Amino acid sequence: MKAGIIGASGYSGELLVKLLLAHPRVELAAVTSRSQAGKPLAKVIPSLRGQDRGLKFVDSDAAALAASDIGLFFLALPHGAAAEYAKVLVPAGKRVIDLSADFRIADLATYERYYGKHHAPELLPHARFVLPELTPPEWKTDANVGLLAAPGCYPTSILVPLVPLLRDGVAAREHIVVNSSSGVSGAGKKIDEMYLYVERAESVKAYGLVKHRHLAEIEEQLALRATGGEPVVIQFNPHLAPMRRGIATTITVPAKNAFIDALYAAWEKAYAGRPFVQILPAGETPDTAHVTGTNRVDMSAVLDPRTGNFVITSALDNVVKGASGQAVQIMNLWFGFDETAGLI
Amino acid sequence: MKAGIIGASGYSGELLVKLLLAHPRVELAAVTSRSQAGKPLAKVIPSLRGQDRGLKFVDSDAAALAASDIGLFFLALPHGAAAEYAKVLVPAGKRVIDLSADFRIADLATYERYYGKHHAPELLPHARFVLPELTPPEWKTDANVGLLAAPGCYPTSILVPLVPLLRDGVAAREHIVVNSSSGVSGAGKKIDEMYLYVERAESVKAYGLVKHRHLAEIEEQLALRATGGEPVVIQFNPHLAPMRRGIATTITVPAKNAFIDALYAAWEKAYAGRPFVQILPAGETPDTAHVTGTNRVDMSAVLDPRTGNFVITSALDNVVKGASGQAVQIMNLWFGFDETAGLI
Amino acid sequence: MKAGIIGASGYSGELLVKLLLAHPRVELAAVTSRSQAGKPLAKVIPSLRGQDRGLKFVDSDAAALAASDIGLFFLALPHGAAAEYAKVLVPAGKRVIDLSADFRIADLATYERYYGKHHAPELLPHARFVLPELTPPEWKTDANVGLLAAPGCYPTSILVPLVPLLRDGVAAREHIVVNSSSGVSGAGKKIDEMYLYVERAESVKAYGLVKHRHLAEIEEQLALRATGGEPVVIQFNPHLAPMRRGIATTITVPAKNAFIDALYAAWEKAYAGRPFVQILPAGETPDTAHVTGTNRVDMSAVLDPRTGNFVITSALDNVVKGASGQAVQIMNLWFGFDETAGLI
Amino acid sequence: MKAGIIGASGYSGELLVKLLLAHPRVELAAVTSRSQAGKPLAKVIPSLRGQDRGLKFVDSDAAALAASDIGLFFLALPHGAAAEYAKVLVPAGKRVIDLSADFRIADLATYERYYGKHHAPELLPHARFVLPELTPPEWKTDANVGLLAAPGCYPTSILVPLVPLLRDGVAAREHIVVNSSSGVSGAGKKIDEMYLYVERAESVKAYGLVKHRHLAEIEEQLALRATGGEPVVIQFNPHLAPMRRGIATTITVPAKNAFIDALYAAWEKAYAGRPFVQILPAGETPDTAHVTGTNRVDMSAVLDPRTGNFVITSALDNVVKGASGQAVQIMNLWFGFDETAGLI
Repeated sequence: MKAGIIGASGYSGELLVKLLLAHPRVELAAVTSRSQAGKPLAKVIPSLRGQDRGLKFVDSDAAALAASDIGLFFLALPHGAAAEYAKVLVPAGKRVIDLSADFRIADLATYERYYGKHHAPELLPHARFVLPELTPPEWKTDANVGLLAAPGCYPTSILVPLVPLLRDGVAAREHIVVNSSSGVSGAGKKIDEMYLYVERAESVKAYGLVKHRHLAEIEEQLALRATGGEPVVIQFNPHLAPMRRGIATTITVPAKNAFIDALYAAWEKAYAGRPFVQILPAGETPDTAHVTGTNRVDMSAVLDPRTGNFVITSALDNVVKGASGQAVQIMNLWFGFDETAGLI
Repeated sequence: MKAGIIGASGYSGELLVKLLLAHPRVELAAVTSRSQAGKPLAKVIPSLRGQDRGLKFVDSDAAALAASDIGLFFLALPHGAAAEYAKVLVPAGKRVIDLSADFRIADLATYERYYGKHHAPELLPHARFVLPELTPPEWKTDANVGLLAAPGCYPTSILVPLVPLLRDGVAAREHIVVNSSSGVSGAGKKIDEMYLYVERAESVKAYGLVKHRHLAEIEEQLALRATGGEPVVIQFNPHLAPMRRGIATTITVPAKNAFIDALYAAWEKAYAGRPFVQILPAGETPDTAHVTGTNRVDMSAVLDPRTGNFVITSALDNVVKGASGQAVQIMNLWFGFDETAGLI
Repeated sequence: MKAGIIGASGYSGELLVKLLLAHPRVELAAVTSRSQAGKPLAKVIPSLRGQDRGLKFVDSDAAALAASDIGLFFLALPHGAAAEYAKVLVPAGKRVIDLSADFRIADLATYERYYGKHHAPELLPHARFVLPELTPPEWKTDANVGLLAAPGCYPTSILVPLVPLLRDGVAAREHIVVNSSSGVSGAGKKIDEMYLYVERAESVKAYGLVKHRHLAEIEEQLALRATGGEPVVIQFNPHLAPMRRGIATTITVPAKNAFIDALYAAWEKAYAGRPFVQILPAGETPDTAHVTGTNRVDMSAVLDPRTGNFVITSALDNVVKGASGQAVQIMNLWFGFDETAGLI
Repeated sequence: MKAGIIGASGYSGELLVKLLLAHPRVELAAVTSRSQAGKPLAKVIPSLRGQDRGLKFVDSDAAALAASDIGLFFLALPHGAAAEYAKVLVPAGKRVIDLSADFRIADLATYERYYGKHHAPELLPHARFVLPELTPPEWKTDANVGLLAAPGCYPTSILVPLVPLLRDGVAAREHIVVNSSSGVSGAGKKIDEMYLYVERAESVKAYGLVKHRHLAEIEEQLALRATGGEPVVIQFNPHLAPMRRGIATTITVPAKNAFIDALYAAWEKAYAGRPFVQILPAGETPDTAHVTGTNRVDMSAVLDPRTGNFVITSALDNVVKGASGQAVQIMNLWFGFDETAGLI
């Protein structure tokens, strides 16, 4: 199967290139980048030296890509730009997996409140947000679906542990407080003083308080997947930490009963046999360093008898399970490949 | 004035040596360390090369120190060991500033629930926990007081922003959630696989859930200083972050009214003119890198209109304001020196 | 083919477990560790969660392993300990790939000058040092060979660029100065104050001056592969740098003629078509971050017209091409697998 | 005494602000920055919160500054820009200490070969390069001198250990190879992809081969101070290391005799009693982490009996002894203050 990547000069795009080059079922047929067009992949992504199979970045426009024999496109573009490509490719019958936020939010008004005007609202009926461990599997076979939206990094780290607990009534829907720490690559490859080595080393700080854009996606999914549509409002406090990759999320949520076993039972019911969710025993906390380079979410929980809260911790690699790895996992499922093909 | 440091081979002890060597009003007359006795200070603390004034570590026992002409001792020892020295030095008329937890908790039962048996409970009536910006100033002139307990690092980062808000009724006393990230020096100089460079680099993880010892001190101080004795129970989630120094704390607390101005007014009332508390405007979050090497707490807050919570962030250097710098600040006030003498 | 790993609790051993678990031609049948016996692999190597195929560490002795149906053993042990296993396994007809220094040095006297008494000198005639890009290929088919010694990390970073230049007379054999910087994992998983996060972050320092053990291997190989036996003496200055993985080596060597083209020609002749050696154009210097996780050596060179020296820089991942990846590469060649099987 | 800083928004400028604010003999009267004019110092340099004494950045032009009552100006500007200010201030009778390269090179042709056209060559007769531990002290009292050039970071780390050895004939003048590793702040506050956190973490790489601009200054000073004018040509290989501050330099130089004692004797003769040079015993290598925040150079050496070379290692903080601290040290000496005033 031939696949293309549109916009591959950021951190997620780079990893996607590597994953597809090594994938047993996919032929990476085109990689586009306006700024890097004409250069060999390995010139821009030096970690690929000797492994780029002679591929070069191209500057094909959407129409040219729509006319090609490539059947699947990944969009690794900023929101807004992604929709512009999608609205050409999807009508042309191409399948599209979008790593941006453009099609993660089903509700147009919500999208526009967080992101501004939507550039292709007409595609929303054909698009699905897919977090493979949580989204009901109908999307795999729905002929009406032409575009899948891969979830954001923070949302994945929050939704995977939280949805089963709210859905099964193990935890309360109020007073949910989420604190997350992200590695610096989470901001993308932005050339800005804030992301200089000297500024970020030895620095932890909160940012984006109190209306981070990922809230749109987190709260919509909680309502859709956990509460039968009833709104859930969470406190979300993101932080930058001095590391390249990784997200560590800590969720405080009131327990609906005083048993940690009920929490673990809900998790087991939701994720038994899922290769990319690892449930750690209470007392063993996930560590971003243990998931770097993998497509896993590691998670565990304890009950605080003093406060009556569950304290839930999760860890993932923001560039893998939080972006490109999850996009490949989605592709695997969409095309009937083994879910773990090309992933670890 | 002659001062001595007992137990100076850890990170707090090292910094205390430096601060006292450079202090304009103090002569550092003795530095003890059982394991390093006989060695020049700079041999053990290489950053002091050329500046240790010929001092060597000594292995004086408590009785010998009590018989010396040194009037003030700092205890930079583990809890338990500190009490053993204190119970010799205080009765001998020496003034003592203790950096351990031994005398931070006024209530003996609380101490023993978190730390085990107390080794010198008879001294508790003569000891005071002093967080200079919060503790009422009677301790400075109370002839009955012979020992001051310097606060812990996490408690300082939490109490400074939180106490005025609870005291003035600006924030609620329930549903308080505190997440903190500490640099690795916060664990002390422990030779353990967990603290190796390779294990900690690129790693953020929660630890010590859900009953970190600092809770004893935090909750007792909240009751004493903010609620007139009424118990306050908080959720406290500490994390390790890949940096050497610094604590970043994020507090979520329900607002009692919907105005951020009330919060800032409470802070201004509490801290106007205090040199080591910096109140940042809403929207400008503190950064551990900006307080490294200083004795400051930087803090700011925003109101989340969606949740009705204040989100408060603070940052300090765990070895300075969280330990040795604060101990020097306490000394300055106790002896009538300028509060900022020898500190930045 | 069944393979076993003896001693897998260090950094090289951990990576070797991962590489063999994912290898298309090998079944990892046993992993031994005295200290971890009985524990699932993923309990000790958390990055393997969900991927350890139910394997546990075992504490089999050498005799039991020799009696098993496993045909190939990797020794990931300290020198000395490796020889003790080898002297049981090799006579029993097992093939052995040793990651320690025990069989890297052909000359017994040299070995003992750097490492002390050899524990299995009788095996030396059956052992070969194999740096796949440099060692003549006879070892692959020599029925007398039962043990292959994988090269050290520093030697690989030095020998790959240097051997062709001395062999072809492009560079001088005198006044060779090598400076290398290694990530902290290069020291192994040593629980020592020197390797704590707080000590190593923000620290670069030379160490092991002036007789690092790897000199034995470097100079013997230079004599064997480059100068027809004539001794070569180099200046080798290793340093520790604040990173987890990676070696950056900079070699200064007098040019025998003033043309950089001659140097590149020698490299092309030696390495054309070799998948794991990447020759960068003059002016583009290798970067440890670009080789992390790969089995590559990246290298480039410039001629300094002011000094007449070539300045050669190379980079590799000390745990991959400097240890476990190279061991797998050697296995691939020994058993007739594709050289790159299981490697990137 | 009133002092001003021209151009204080870079890393050296920031530290200079802090040092002068805390200096016992100097009043910091003006801090200029075109881009930050009008902002309080602490707004731009957050680590100064509460300590900027109400000072704001100003955008005074050179003429206005020349007409002020400020007697001493520090130039913390790029080369070229510094000369433009100097040629107004020096003729107006102001004393100037320049942290740029503009007046470090006595020989105009050499300057222009490395840096391009000089903007104020007419000032060269009134300017002196001052490395306080090496430059003969006549500059302190020479009425003709109006401008002092503070040395570069790499040159300081190289010249301090090397000059006495060449001057006293302890080491050879040929085959000198210098490798240095610098923290990322050494590049200044450049907003460039190369200096992003994600690019530099876990990365060591050589750069600037083979004609780094600091060579001009290093080789001129070696000739002037060590060899009576005879040219010395060195191999200089700079590297970037993943740390914020610090330079670690390793020098290989052939010994002129086989005694390490002669080397140490030359050092003792040159530096006995100098507060900012620390000579470590052979075998104890300097560590950048031990000099961070200090104005020291730490250095040691060993003799390699196999090669006949001395291997010399030095460490300093590139922003302190390599820039602003050394500029303050020069000021102290020029104005007759204690050499260590305001420095540690």
